[in-house]
Amino acid sequence: MSEKEFQQVGESTTGPAQQNPYGPNPADFLSNVNNFQLIDSTLREGEQFANAFFSTEKKIEIAKALDDFGVDYIELTSPVASEQSRKDCEAICKLGLKAKILTHIRCHMDDARVAVETGVDGVDVVIGTSKFLRQYSHGKDMNYIANSAVEVINFVKSKGIEIRFSSEDSFRSDLVDLLNIYKTVNKIGVNRVGIADTVGCANPRQVYELVRTLKSVVSCDIECHFHNDTGCAIANAYTALEGGARLIDVSVLGIGERNGITPLGGLMARMIVAAPEYVKSKYKLKKIRDIENLVADAVEVNIPFNNPITGFCAFTHKAGIHAKAILANPSTYEILDPHDFGLKRYIHFANRLTGWNAIKSRVDQLNLNLTDAQIKEITAKIKKLGDVRPLNIDDVDSIIKDFHMELTTPMLKPTEGEGEEEPLDITGEPASKKVKTK
Amino acid sequence: MSEKEFQQVGESTTGPAQQNPYGPNPADFLSNVNNFQLIDSTLREGEQFANAFFSTEKKIEIAKALDDFGVDYIELTSPVASEQSRKDCEAICKLGLKAKILTHIRCHMDDARVAVETGVDGVDVVIGTSKFLRQYSHGKDMNYIANSAVEVINFVKSKGIEIRFSSEDSFRSDLVDLLNIYKTVNKIGVNRVGIADTVGCANPRQVYELVRTLKSVVSCDIECHFHNDTGCAIANAYTALEGGARLIDVSVLGIGERNGITPLGGLMARMIVAAPEYVKSKYKLKKIRDIENLVADAVEVNIPFNNPITGFCAFTHKAGIHAKAILANPSTYEILDPHDFGLKRYIHFANRLTGWNAIKSRVDQLNLNLTDAQIKEITAKIKKLGDVRPLNIDDVDSIIKDFHMELTTPMLKPTEGEGEEEPLDITGEPASKKVKTK
Repeated sequence: MSEKEFQQVGESTTGPAQQNPYGPNPADFLSNVNNFQLIDSTLREGEQFANAFFSTEKKIEIAKALDDFGVDYIELTSPVASEQSRKDCEAICKLGLKAKILTHIRCHMDDARVAVETGVDGVDVVIGTSKFLRQYSHGKDMNYIANSAVEVINFVKSKGIEIRFSSEDSFRSDLVDLLNIYKTVNKIGVNRVGIADTVGCANPRQVYELVRTLKSVVSCDIECHFHNDTGCAIANAYTALEGGARLIDVSVLGIGERNGITPLGGLMARMIVAAPEYVKSKYKLKKIRDIENLVADAVEVNIPFNNPITGFCAFTHKAGIHAKAILANPSTYEILDPHDFGLKRYIHFANRLTGWNAIKSRVDQLNLNLTDAQIKEITAKIKKLGDVRPLNIDDVDSIIKDFHMELTTPMLKPTEGEGEEEPLDITGEPASKKVKTK
Repeated sequence: MSEKEFQQVGESTTGPAQQNPYGPNPADFLSNVNNFQLIDSTLREGEQFANAFFSTEKKIEIAKALDDFGVDYIELTSPVASEQSRKDCEAICKLGLKAKILTHIRCHMDDARVAVETGVDGVDVVIGTSKFLRQYSHGKDMNYIANSAVEVINFVKSKGIEIRFSSEDSFRSDLVDLLNIYKTVNKIGVNRVGIADTVGCANPRQVYELVRTLKSVVSCDIECHFHNDTGCAIANAYTALEGGARLIDVSVLGIGERNGITPLGGLMARMIVAAPEYVKSKYKLKKIRDIENLVADAVEVNIPFNNPITGFCAFTHKAGIHAKAILANPSTYEILDPHDFGLKRYIHFANRLTGWNAIKSRVDQLNLNLTDAQIKEITAKIKKLGDVRPLNIDDVDSIIKDFHMELTTPMLKPTEGEGEEEPLDITGEPASKKVKTK
């Protein structure tokens, strides 16, 4: 086949259709991608994480950190879970945080009466609506659920406190049942209705459809809660906002029942791409690392190696062609800017996949004068050694310096290199060291 | 407001609209949710992970494990990356695995000539098509790209080897440019075209739209590759299949550049919900844990605490109301069955959020006879101690046994409990022990 037979491909001259190509889809008229709120549930859902035991002091420390970060709401364990849970709830309400304080209770007057006395700004009520939960958990029918919901909502509202009504296991509930109960509670003036993917079964387009449908039934705000069993909790949160949900439940590192819910940091990674101005003006993104470390320590886990933003290699570039382009313009292989999060980028050049552009950058850092041809020769040596064993920054620097030494003082033995370099954006240090230290 | 004012909610009697409510959306006529293939790229994309250095022996061990699991394709690092890379590629081709072996090269005849001599079943060609990559990486225009693609594709096809053409950074490329080049390569008989979210910026509905559009332009299979920078790599893979993509690139634990790509295990969690029969008949799901441990050891990372399926608490239930329902029917709070993966479920009852149903289940395991009222009394004691400090299984057992002892021999001092229990599905062991080992 000759070159002329295939369709000619012209250089496109079309301008950008919208200012931010990763921003809200213009076809989503109800989108809240640019106007969302966060309900952090580290101290409620997160307390249901297998490893979690938060002392009063730790709860207060976490609540203050979340408030400083800028979350809109902080949700706490039900005051009827235990006596200390009630006292902790009261203590956090007294801190005078900017964030509104919520507690999360069963849809029952016994719980509601205790909740309204704690000093919270709002009460989150939940009841299972799926056939599974109605049969095996509380055993009540939809009429009973509606009656309880109306009683609890009217009671909480009478105290001048915000009230949210959520179904549980919404994606395994009957759609007509769901819309009926949401319509009922909306009519009596609930502040928010909640959709909860309690078992983590939902997929993004399903979420979008349900939120869109619900948006046509209720006038109040819609809150969404996504478990991460099948790995879609961040994506589901994003499509929920596209469909018109306003509030997303998150927890630090996503801790919660089983493998947890939408993580605060991961959702920030998603949202800063879509709504950079909104996210940067509202949330202190540089605090994410500290908050994650605080909670990880408290529940005795490590930050996952592949965590969005704060995973040890989230901004590490390794392959030669990646390194080359990143050195020319970081946007080539980065949608997130590490500096937005108070972090740095790394070029991992000490390995067999390295390229000469990455090595050239290192040569420049070492302030040595070498031609491109010489650097390519060095690169070949490095790749050869990298085939034999893992390399570190000293290996590469030795090869570079030996080569340079031979050029400048060909008759002398190479001497030891200088001392430590200053901290650099570019490093060949094997990242495993960072992983192993907590 | 009286009870009669709100809308009556009737018990729904509608039957299931489709057999599996989590299965393919019937509106997706082109869906491959029930008919997808996996290209595992642990030995290519995964080698670009900061910590990865695979010896020849380790590569072979990983390739055999993936083949045994049942992946359709195994993708290897370019043979031009280094001399050892080429030798390793040849060695893996000689293993006689069921999976087809691919190697991944730049869209260049120099690379193609080496690749076709290695013994691979297919060659994956990639070239950057976004303005970013065209400007800062290879510096070529779309006509140059098209010419190179045609030359390389015709050459590889002439050797009787499968060929895939992928754009790089597809979601930041001009749509018309993309469709033009895909149409061109489809016409000359490429086996697959690839869409790559190289920087991890895509969101699920965007993915669906692009795949659907591309599906109307090409007749060959569509392969997708998603990075996870903004946490959507699993969800994007799923919506790509809904839109008609056939093949998904994965790696074990998602290892790759930066924080990696769609993880094999996480995608299996998503897909078993949607296509249980297909997934269970095709892939050896019980091997996931071993493969993840193999790769985690090789690259010196820990399995993330919140990993789908194999995270240490993915099947641990803690809150009292969860435990109660799980004991009655596991499906109430589980969309995945741990036994499908050779794993077990845990009820974490030794904490202040526990409920009397969970404690009752433990009493039964200990083979003690207590009334419900007595168990509720014990539960209150456990919650009280759980308010003071973290509990373990021995704490709870001691409380139960002391209580039982006082009932049966009220005048005697309680004695020490028996020795160790056998392994149980239900445990109160603090999970942190499991996290800290490995």
